[in-house]
Amino acid sequence: MSTSTARFVRRIPEGEDRERLTCNDCGYVAYENPKIVVGSVVAVEGRVLLCRRAIEPRRGFWTIPAGYMELGETVEEGALREAREEACAELQLDGVLAVYSIARIGQVQILFRASLASPGFAAGPESLEVRLFDWDEIPWDELAFPSVHWVLQAWREAGDAPLGAPRGNPPADLRGTTPLPLRTSEAAA
Amino acid sequence: MSTSTARFVRRIPEGEDRERLTCNDCGYVAYENPKIVVGSVVAVEGRVLLCRRAIEPRRGFWTIPAGYMELGETVEEGALREAREEACAELQLDGVLAVYSIARIGQVQILFRASLASPGFAAGPESLEVRLFDWDEIPWDELAFPSVHWVLQAWREAGDAPLGAPRGNPPADLRGTTPLPLRTSEAAA
Repeated sequence: MSTSTARFVRRIPEGEDRERLTCNDCGYVAYENPKIVVGSVVAVEGRVLLCRRAIEPRRGFWTIPAGYMELGETVEEGALREAREEACAELQLDGVLAVYSIARIGQVQILFRASLASPGFAAGPESLEVRLFDWDEIPWDELAFPSVHWVLQAWREAGDAPLGAPRGNPPADLRGTTPLPLRTSEAAA
Repeated sequence: MSTSTARFVRRIPEGEDRERLTCNDCGYVAYENPKIVVGSVVAVEGRVLLCRRAIEPRRGFWTIPAGYMELGETVEEGALREAREEACAELQLDGVLAVYSIARIGQVQILFRASLASPGFAAGPESLEVRLFDWDEIPWDELAFPSVHWVLQAWREAGDAPLGAPRGNPPADLRGTTPLPLRTSEAAA
């Protein structure tokens, strides 16, 4: 299947103030909006559930169960779906732990604090492995994305207390501009 | 300018599990993602700032300064921009007060509690009027959207205390399915 965008050009539609991706043939405006990632820090008796990614980017690295929110679902439904897909886990959501903006790639991450609603988890098709980590075991050098670092720290700082206002980006990276680490395939090259 | 989408059909791209809007000519997949609305409940000495909409939908009705987040900005930057555009106001954001899902229209609203960073406000081009309301003066029957009701109640309940975890949809409307009120033009017809 072709993914050509050759017929799309950037121009300012009538009545707007910025360029939009517009089909040169039919005038269809493909609005490019920030995309929402929903996910959860899942804890079981103080240990954190992480998934080792079976897909690029960052195949082989560890992340929380999270992914793109789909049209027609709520943020909560999206976070529950991602945990089912990636970790075969049924979650109980506690509340929004963090809202991060990764402006460089047009992404907003809405991340919950959660526990297991029923025992058991396993690697779904997008995961190589799913397991629980004690805090001191977390493979910090093998985490998939900067925001996984951020949200694990936020989870640790929140402790068992009721959640406060969600954390935002850390002061050192307010706009989410830390480049992603290399893909493993590139790192190996 | 044409907004025809005649060349776009819904089909399941290779390797995916659901239909996507796909150009029949070039195969371009126009992913339809939930869109993010960012906005703020702005209070000045206990009074709430509301804007009377100069645009459809719901022209003439009152809302908080809020609008679609743009690509390349953070949620905080988006909320500040909307307050500038709609109310000529410079805000100080306090934290995320509410995260609502309006699944029916594929919208997620990230709404802050805020104050004025500098005195003064005025109607921007998308507002007919901007003013402060005492709680008892709020024109409940003339609010633009159900979520404006929700977030004003959430703001009231939060009081002056530090923010807790953001409110989600009210239990009576967990998926955001309350239909929008009629457009004023329809209501007048």
